[in-house]
Amino acid sequence: MSNDIEGTAAAIRDMSIRGAGKIARAGSMALADFARRYSGTDMERFLSDLDSAKRTLLESRPTAVSLWNGLHATVRGVEECRDTGEAASLVIANAERFSAQSLEAVETIGRIGAKRIRDGDTVMTHCNSSAALSVIKTAHSQGKDVKVFATESRPWRQGLLTVRDLHQAGVDTTLIIDSAVRTVMKRVDAVFVGADTITSHGALINKIGTSQLALAAKEARVQFYVCSETYKFSPMTIFGDMVTIEERGSGEMVREGEIPEGVKVFNPVFDSTPTEYIDAIITELGMMSPGSVYGTMVRMLGERALRAE
Amino acid sequence: MSNDIEGTAAAIRDMSIRGAGKIARAGSMALADFARRYSGTDMERFLSDLDSAKRTLLESRPTAVSLWNGLHATVRGVEECRDTGEAASLVIANAERFSAQSLEAVETIGRIGAKRIRDGDTVMTHCNSSAALSVIKTAHSQGKDVKVFATESRPWRQGLLTVRDLHQAGVDTTLIIDSAVRTVMKRVDAVFVGADTITSHGALINKIGTSQLALAAKEARVQFYVCSETYKFSPMTIFGDMVTIEERGSGEMVREGEIPEGVKVFNPVFDSTPTEYIDAIITELGMMSPGSVYGTMVRMLGERALRAE
Amino acid sequence: MSNDIEGTAAAIRDMSIRGAGKIARAGSMALADFARRYSGTDMERFLSDLDSAKRTLLESRPTAVSLWNGLHATVRGVEECRDTGEAASLVIANAERFSAQSLEAVETIGRIGAKRIRDGDTVMTHCNSSAALSVIKTAHSQGKDVKVFATESRPWRQGLLTVRDLHQAGVDTTLIIDSAVRTVMKRVDAVFVGADTITSHGALINKIGTSQLALAAKEARVQFYVCSETYKFSPMTIFGDMVTIEERGSGEMVREGEIPEGVKVFNPVFDSTPTEYIDAIITELGMMSPGSVYGTMVRMLGERALRAE
Amino acid sequence: MSNDIEGTAAAIRDMSIRGAGKIARAGSMALADFARRYSGTDMERFLSDLDSAKRTLLESRPTAVSLWNGLHATVRGVEECRDTGEAASLVIANAERFSAQSLEAVETIGRIGAKRIRDGDTVMTHCNSSAALSVIKTAHSQGKDVKVFATESRPWRQGLLTVRDLHQAGVDTTLIIDSAVRTVMKRVDAVFVGADTITSHGALINKIGTSQLALAAKEARVQFYVCSETYKFSPMTIFGDMVTIEERGSGEMVREGEIPEGVKVFNPVFDSTPTEYIDAIITELGMMSPGSVYGTMVRMLGERALRAE
Amino acid sequence: MSNDIEGTAAAIRDMSIRGAGKIARAGSMALADFARRYSGTDMERFLSDLDSAKRTLLESRPTAVSLWNGLHATVRGVEECRDTGEAASLVIANAERFSAQSLEAVETIGRIGAKRIRDGDTVMTHCNSSAALSVIKTAHSQGKDVKVFATESRPWRQGLLTVRDLHQAGVDTTLIIDSAVRTVMKRVDAVFVGADTITSHGALINKIGTSQLALAAKEARVQFYVCSETYKFSPMTIFGDMVTIEERGSGEMVREGEIPEGVKVFNPVFDSTPTEYIDAIITELGMMSPGSVYGTMVRMLGERALRAE
Amino acid sequence: MSNDIEGTAAAIRDMSIRGAGKIARAGSMALADFARRYSGTDMERFLSDLDSAKRTLLESRPTAVSLWNGLHATVRGVEECRDTGEAASLVIANAERFSAQSLEAVETIGRIGAKRIRDGDTVMTHCNSSAALSVIKTAHSQGKDVKVFATESRPWRQGLLTVRDLHQAGVDTTLIIDSAVRTVMKRVDAVFVGADTITSHGALINKIGTSQLALAAKEARVQFYVCSETYKFSPMTIFGDMVTIEERGSGEMVREGEIPEGVKVFNPVFDSTPTEYIDAIITELGMMSPGSVYGTMVRMLGERALRAE
Repeated sequence: MSNDIEGTAAAIRDMSIRGAGKIARAGSMALADFARRYSGTDMERFLSDLDSAKRTLLESRPTAVSLWNGLHATVRGVEECRDTGEAASLVIANAERFSAQSLEAVETIGRIGAKRIRDGDTVMTHCNSSAALSVIKTAHSQGKDVKVFATESRPWRQGLLTVRDLHQAGVDTTLIIDSAVRTVMKRVDAVFVGADTITSHGALINKIGTSQLALAAKEARVQFYVCSETYKFSPMTIFGDMVTIEERGSGEMVREGEIPEGVKVFNPVFDSTPTEYIDAIITELGMMSPGSVYGTMVRMLGERALRAE
Repeated sequence: MSNDIEGTAAAIRDMSIRGAGKIARAGSMALADFARRYSGTDMERFLSDLDSAKRTLLESRPTAVSLWNGLHATVRGVEECRDTGEAASLVIANAERFSAQSLEAVETIGRIGAKRIRDGDTVMTHCNSSAALSVIKTAHSQGKDVKVFATESRPWRQGLLTVRDLHQAGVDTTLIIDSAVRTVMKRVDAVFVGADTITSHGALINKIGTSQLALAAKEARVQFYVCSETYKFSPMTIFGDMVTIEERGSGEMVREGEIPEGVKVFNPVFDSTPTEYIDAIITELGMMSPGSVYGTMVRMLGERALRAE
Repeated sequence: MSNDIEGTAAAIRDMSIRGAGKIARAGSMALADFARRYSGTDMERFLSDLDSAKRTLLESRPTAVSLWNGLHATVRGVEECRDTGEAASLVIANAERFSAQSLEAVETIGRIGAKRIRDGDTVMTHCNSSAALSVIKTAHSQGKDVKVFATESRPWRQGLLTVRDLHQAGVDTTLIIDSAVRTVMKRVDAVFVGADTITSHGALINKIGTSQLALAAKEARVQFYVCSETYKFSPMTIFGDMVTIEERGSGEMVREGEIPEGVKVFNPVFDSTPTEYIDAIITELGMMSPGSVYGTMVRMLGERALRAE
Repeated sequence: MSNDIEGTAAAIRDMSIRGAGKIARAGSMALADFARRYSGTDMERFLSDLDSAKRTLLESRPTAVSLWNGLHATVRGVEECRDTGEAASLVIANAERFSAQSLEAVETIGRIGAKRIRDGDTVMTHCNSSAALSVIKTAHSQGKDVKVFATESRPWRQGLLTVRDLHQAGVDTTLIIDSAVRTVMKRVDAVFVGADTITSHGALINKIGTSQLALAAKEARVQFYVCSETYKFSPMTIFGDMVTIEERGSGEMVREGEIPEGVKVFNPVFDSTPTEYIDAIITELGMMSPGSVYGTMVRMLGERALRAE
Repeated sequence: MSNDIEGTAAAIRDMSIRGAGKIARAGSMALADFARRYSGTDMERFLSDLDSAKRTLLESRPTAVSLWNGLHATVRGVEECRDTGEAASLVIANAERFSAQSLEAVETIGRIGAKRIRDGDTVMTHCNSSAALSVIKTAHSQGKDVKVFATESRPWRQGLLTVRDLHQAGVDTTLIIDSAVRTVMKRVDAVFVGADTITSHGALINKIGTSQLALAAKEARVQFYVCSETYKFSPMTIFGDMVTIEERGSGEMVREGEIPEGVKVFNPVFDSTPTEYIDAIITELGMMSPGSVYGTMVRMLGERALRAE
Repeated sequence: MSNDIEGTAAAIRDMSIRGAGKIARAGSMALADFARRYSGTDMERFLSDLDSAKRTLLESRPTAVSLWNGLHATVRGVEECRDTGEAASLVIANAERFSAQSLEAVETIGRIGAKRIRDGDTVMTHCNSSAALSVIKTAHSQGKDVKVFATESRPWRQGLLTVRDLHQAGVDTTLIIDSAVRTVMKRVDAVFVGADTITSHGALINKIGTSQLALAAKEARVQFYVCSETYKFSPMTIFGDMVTIEERGSGEMVREGEIPEGVKVFNPVFDSTPTEYIDAIITELGMMSPGSVYGTMVRMLGERALRAE
């Protein structure tokens, strides 16, 4: 297997590549690179290698629905190809289309969501979501005066990426610790977060801490918007699959020796925000209610899929 | 431009014509009158004049989705006509069909909603909504003993219209001030209000004070029903548009000299009721949840519209 | 009319046959038996007798939507048959298909719902629902350690059926009185209940006490799942029909002489659980939000039905 | 009986004299005037006339605890006097002390409450309460930038008095209709209202609409402060007395002919705000919780009173 | 030890004697009977026997604070007596005083609470509380039209005692099962329950199911009153003691053979209602807030007790 | 001024000395050291130097009520002393008594609070509170199996101190990030936090993030206990004083260069938890409701203080 696949998988695993869209596009592009460099002519071998590559990538972040959707879209139709040349070309074309649509989705979401920000608004965001930042930066680029509170987002502190990104775009940005969310909420007009996955019954799976923002926003009557490409809607949840909440090691939270051996560390990566705390989901297909996710998935997958489990 | 257009626009602007259905039908009929009297034969001129008329009407109440939908339905197809005679006929026919369907919708909603009222129930309504009153009067005409609390609905006091209308229909009606809503709520079995607009994520935009009724109803476990023709579902909100809340002058609230100069007056016309306070939306296409609005709009507009923004 | 129809109706009426699926299948099978034994050849007479049989069965539990759907599915197309032989065959075939699909639905729901139970979870159930028990027993049969609190479910104490059923399946089961629901809720990870009917706006009509479980679950942040075949979605509620809450006699609650004459007894059979207390509805078409019920019904009934009331 | 008693009673009855403190002081001063002008020497007659005067005043607003407390404080000890001269002097002295302390209480409350307003805050008030306005004006006079939303307070529109008073004090003031409370609440930092009465379990009885402000404030996480002299704590509620909610005639709400005969009008003067919506009660004895009212009353009345009912 | 002590203890244990007041008075009276029949003259022996008797009674219901308070009040001062005659007399006198005050407390609570019932009100009660029934019967005897919903209160079905008692008093009474509480709550104006114990932070410990009534009452904005003699305030909770929730055997819930061996039964006797669901506590010292319990206990016990733990 | 005063003030300022009790005792002891070393004989000079020392210490953490109370208790009566020797002795004695009582309070709270932990419970704590840890360690030392989730408590990460302390005591401890609070809450039986200050209306001022724990605990029906010595009750809040929320520099949150210049950092040290999220306050005077704080303060300060403002 080529180094690129391994390298991309490693970068996803150690979170050098972060953000669901970036992961999906990175995975998709890694498959395209794989195809581009493929020199063999044995079709069966190609399919098997491609499948290994796909599986390696999937395992780098098994909970990322976008990665699943992106890789799936990239290999679609490859089995019907006549030779490895045609197959490689298809993989490359699929990857490019997926990336283009995925990037466009972020833009569309930015354009839709920006309308929910009024001139003079203060918004809050959590972690580092391309879609959520697209909304804020679009509003700013339209000349609206928008102020942002960005959480630090321990343990990886992706909030530092967020404040750098917003600052570069010229947005007035303030960094807060994760514990200050409720205190700051009283000054906030709307919260914009991204999504790792959205389930068929409208629950949001996203970076740990998201559900606390949502709870504090509801308590203070502040609008809570989820910015999500529809390829993050999880097909498996229709059939009841629980979204596995990945746990990561203690090394992300404490340096060696900082706490005595024997003290445990619990480091879940995501949490689940119930529908009643979500005001709207902003997708590239428009703004909808959590109650509309199932119907949208049915339209995307086709009704037959519901009977096929 | 004919006086009728201006006159209708003025009547909408100064609220002589009130209620979303009436506004839409009045606007539609004003275009029909315009077409009926049109004597010119220059098609280009006709289209341009018609467009001016449409825009004049739209600007009389830019926040009224029903007016937008009604005018849009009235001019549909006119550009494909061969001459002004054909075009005028089409406008007239469109206007009549829209008015008929719109009036029928109110009746259908009345028939559906009346089933949610049990014999002996006490209900509350706010402002002056044809659809909500249709529900109450239908229940009454079915022989059910129904009592109504109607709010005064300051500043325009449309509650007076409501109590006159209900009284004429023989319904037992009690007028209350807007501040008495929470006190009275304990005696109420269900609230029925109309809609100015419903957004794609299921929020209700309606006469100022509606969200207070909804909040008080939720606090007391009282059913809160929105009665709305589906042409009030706002297509623009799919793409994120905020519904602009019109503000009106102080003259509606105080007479000159009643308050010192320098005291400000804030007079917003509408407010926004979040989905969690709405038990059901009663439309001419049946009773649904706020979570079903987006899917219904997609079926009405076609999925292609979602990609075209 | 054959004894089987009367006997089945009586068994439904006196609750020897309980549970919506069992009622629907029993009713459907009673019509099949009726058809099987039918010896006459007068087609008109057959249709009229069949209709009487259907009506007798419907009246045994007028509030059971599943019975309505089951009987309706069983007689579908019979009027187009040429003779009583063909008609009888059709009824039998319809009944068998309905029973098969209905039983399969319970299995599918069991498979989907079982994924919502984690190893080590404690769940609660109420009354005696095939679909809810299918979920629990499936999880158990998958080797998950699942503990169950089952309510007694006065006055008919269907909880005794539930604990016998679960015990036979080897599930660790504890019986509680209905008043202990809130106390026990703190130890519960998820609640699974069945449905008598689900309305177009997503409310659940189910055995009296269900809404109390839901309320206590919401208070304690415990997931509340409804397990329901889609044939329990009530088409009539789209057009506003209230689900009638059956009241039953005092004999189910007290023995003669236990309370003085003059003391009244109020014995409603069902209650209504509002959508905000329901986390997800698990159907054979997947897991959805209450906000998705209307759209699912529209797909099942066809949009034309919405205009035909 | 002197005209002053009748005149004061009438002025209280027709609401020329408004506000609990003003009513209490007016009643107290009317008794002082009565005593001042009393020329008779028959002590028994004096006591009986004084009692009549007291009762006439009490009946002008039977629900006003402050009036009860003020009149009671004014006649205290009079029965032990030896002659009408001494008795009249005592009544006059009592009245002056009560008025002084009552006015001082408003000042103290203003000083305490003003600390709860930060520079730049926006506050809301309802109706026309001396104590609440004292808080706002004190904060303003300390140089704090404070903006006020004042409700119209239908039907008597005491909000007009409030905006005139605040405007004269130089405070930035905006008038809103009562239905706009929830819409405006998002911009508000704290609500300050007065009290008609506070019960022994901490509920607030105040001008109709107060409980709606409190509910909307709680929904939006806005501090809700009650400004109340302790003489408004109702001793009778310790023994269970319900505070009677006065109803007034339709003439305050509609002019003759505005609504058809037969339409009823319900015009309650006060409502009851439950303790869970009250953040703090600001009294001249400091800021306390609703849970501290009973204990404070016990200290004021003496524990013996609790056994004497 | 005399049979009366054992007999009374047994009757308390097997719930022939029920209700906190009755238990306390029965225990107190059993000690009086013990003293009355005591023929010995050895003072040391008397004290030791008395102590055994007290302990036997305490153990019959270790969670009943009233029993603790009643027995404690009955033996107060006995150690200072010079001989067994004097000691016996004191015990008898103490018991009579305690019983009298305890019975009087129920009457006073009835008088205070009755004022919270308006003519035409419907109230709900749970289990069988003398204090709560005193409130309802007093209101009825004052000529108020009051209707009562009484829960069955499984497993011991004390609701049957309640409906017999109310029926005898001529009150319009309806029996419901415990699962119907939420359904019926919409028709209820106020809930009155008794108390087993009230903690220093204002939580109510009472018959299992009470907290469900309270939760359903809060959800529907229905007043929830606790009727409690102050001797039920638990002194031990000041120092943190958890009130032990007694569990009883399965024999109270199912007859032998009704459920398979292996099915467990969980049968807790009490539950805990948090303060936020309690509107007021009605005691013989007046109506107070849960927040006032600690202060009242401090006044009853003396502040020194707080430092003595 | 001696180095000890400055050194102690510096250690408080830079948070080497943390925790309200430790700060108060450190401040008190610093004054004792100051007195011990004082060699002058000019009484006026002594008082002025002592006052300077007191003020220096107060300014090291102006928001710490305990420091105020501790220093105030330490200098009490010094002005009545005849010479510097007597005065120094008094300061030393006062300091020792304060420290003893303060340490004892922590023990008493530990003993009371430990009763609220049942064998097998999992509890959560935030930051590093002696009183809260005393509760947990006491329960552990009583042989109860208690597991603890301790938050990291950014930015100073006092959670590391907490886990070290609990680990040393042998308690099973797990460290989580602050964003994981809501996720973990479902496994928690009770939350124990300390207090920086408690206001007269029962609100808790404590380490930033405390109100988020409280909110998440309320959402999940988890008991939330505040462990607080009564010397933390803030006398100034009776008279309306807002507790100033200290803000600290960005250096505590980010290292230089980690974020671009221009990105702001908001670093509040405390937040305010409203009474409705607090189940009980555990003090050395027993467990009470937030509604009991005002009455307790009145007993501690004397009622005269209320009139003296």
